[in-house]
Amino acid sequence: MPLIVTGTIGIDTIETPFGKADQVLGGSCTYFAAAASFFAPVRMVAAVGGDFDDHTRSTLARFPNVCVVGLETRSDSKTFAWGGKYLNNWNTRETIFTELGVLAEAPPLTPEEYRDSKYVFLANSHPSVQLDLLKGFPDRAIAVADTMDLWIDTAKTELLALLAEVDGVVLNDQEAAQLTGHQNPLTAGKAILELGPTFAVIKKGEHGCLLVHRDGMAALPAYPTETVNDPTGAGDSFGGGMMGHIARTHSAEHFGSEPVTFNMIRQGLAFGTIIASFTVEAFSLERLAALTESELMGRLEEFKTMVALD
Amino acid sequence: MPLIVTGTIGIDTIETPFGKADQVLGGSCTYFAAAASFFAPVRMVAAVGGDFDDHTRSTLARFPNVCVVGLETRSDSKTFAWGGKYLNNWNTRETIFTELGVLAEAPPLTPEEYRDSKYVFLANSHPSVQLDLLKGFPDRAIAVADTMDLWIDTAKTELLALLAEVDGVVLNDQEAAQLTGHQNPLTAGKAILELGPTFAVIKKGEHGCLLVHRDGMAALPAYPTETVNDPTGAGDSFGGGMMGHIARTHSAEHFGSEPVTFNMIRQGLAFGTIIASFTVEAFSLERLAALTESELMGRLEEFKTMVALD
Repeated sequence: MPLIVTGTIGIDTIETPFGKADQVLGGSCTYFAAAASFFAPVRMVAAVGGDFDDHTRSTLARFPNVCVVGLETRSDSKTFAWGGKYLNNWNTRETIFTELGVLAEAPPLTPEEYRDSKYVFLANSHPSVQLDLLKGFPDRAIAVADTMDLWIDTAKTELLALLAEVDGVVLNDQEAAQLTGHQNPLTAGKAILELGPTFAVIKKGEHGCLLVHRDGMAALPAYPTETVNDPTGAGDSFGGGMMGHIARTHSAEHFGSEPVTFNMIRQGLAFGTIIASFTVEAFSLERLAALTESELMGRLEEFKTMVALD
Repeated sequence: MPLIVTGTIGIDTIETPFGKADQVLGGSCTYFAAAASFFAPVRMVAAVGGDFDDHTRSTLARFPNVCVVGLETRSDSKTFAWGGKYLNNWNTRETIFTELGVLAEAPPLTPEEYRDSKYVFLANSHPSVQLDLLKGFPDRAIAVADTMDLWIDTAKTELLALLAEVDGVVLNDQEAAQLTGHQNPLTAGKAILELGPTFAVIKKGEHGCLLVHRDGMAALPAYPTETVNDPTGAGDSFGGGMMGHIARTHSAEHFGSEPVTFNMIRQGLAFGTIIASFTVEAFSLERLAALTESELMGRLEEFKTMVALD
């Protein structure tokens, strides 16, 4: 059940109302892979610079289900670095600085041994880079892309070309509105399906998520939590939990030969929700690195009880 | 299974991005009773003025399960009137005018024949009025109160006295934050339980609801809809659906002799969610007045499928 992800690996400097973390491991690819690795083996395609030190690398190594063969180290370059600050209202995030580093260079290459990957996740990066990687997997079972406001603004043509090729897209409510011109998440979701994808997952942060699929709809609240110390990576972790569940279930139930069903994606939303609820409890990957299988399954069961209707 | 509600009856003048309605039936008691009446007979205790004309009265009569014996008409007074405007962002509502009318006078009296009511809902009005009505029902199975920012600001002592007496409270996320000083809805909900109630339902509008109960928690998304023409009364309808379900289920399952359970309230959230999703489709009570049992049950089943997890 090989799951592959491309996206950014970053060195984050983060300030929240509850503390500060200097130069910690972050990035869309990282959060996705760490989260997905609880459910399925994950292959990373990403690049870092010579400044990606052993200490930071050791954080990645705490996720044994993440394969780093596709992690390119470019000794003369610098790792992507991002500084951000969250205001008291968690929904407002200020970018303090962005140093593109390796992201301004050629995208990383996919190792030959990754070619049999069936589940492809294109974590947030330039849509042309996402589309290039996607072309290397003509026999995939499913491809899902994330994106961000920057690309909707600056690379819409490339983004639309990407959307015509993927099965699904995962984005937040503001991005969905920006992409489609519709504030209503359901209307926005339907408009995204017109652009090509079979489904759109609209993430609403603390307010949960909505799945608009050609075969139906699903909606879930977020897991109600009082412990939010750093929301960075919540959305990427959500994608990881969802795709990890899809990869595991699809390979087990159909040996990968049938299409991924609406129900697999729908159930995946719960796995994404729960893993994201752990991510936000601590800075960087700390909570996920310490997370046990029984904590994860315990909270998932608790969540199922919370939303259960007779 | 007699359910009783006190609160306001209003003549509303409403403007939304989708239209305008002049002098239509509204008020917390009205929306609650209309919504609850799909599940249980409802008794109204409220007052109107001499200007409450036959046309407006005939809208109420479209809900045959609503008993209006407790509706006092004061020919020399005026009905409470409210004018409001919703901005493009549905969450922002401007009050254009408020004419208290009968609300500035003595509260309506509870008819003797209503004394055997077992399920008491105190829709939004002054907490002293709510508490006075409540005292008339010492043998109730459950009492639940709604409130608003105005009373938290201007009548907090009276509101706290009320909260010490009720089993549950229904309020929106902003009101919960204002009452407790906690922005996090879960923290706010727990703080409300410290004030006396066994449970708090925190309504989040388009983002669903959260139930914090001494016996557990529950959370539901809103029903995803593209049809929002007038959000007035959504919260009161939610309360009506919830209490109507509780009244029906509790009287059927325990003949009213056992306490109302966490699960009854939890399931009630779904009924509140669905009935509110119809309310917002049209101005005033129009959609509820036209609503059929099969439409209601159809959407409820659809909603259950949307949130169902394996």
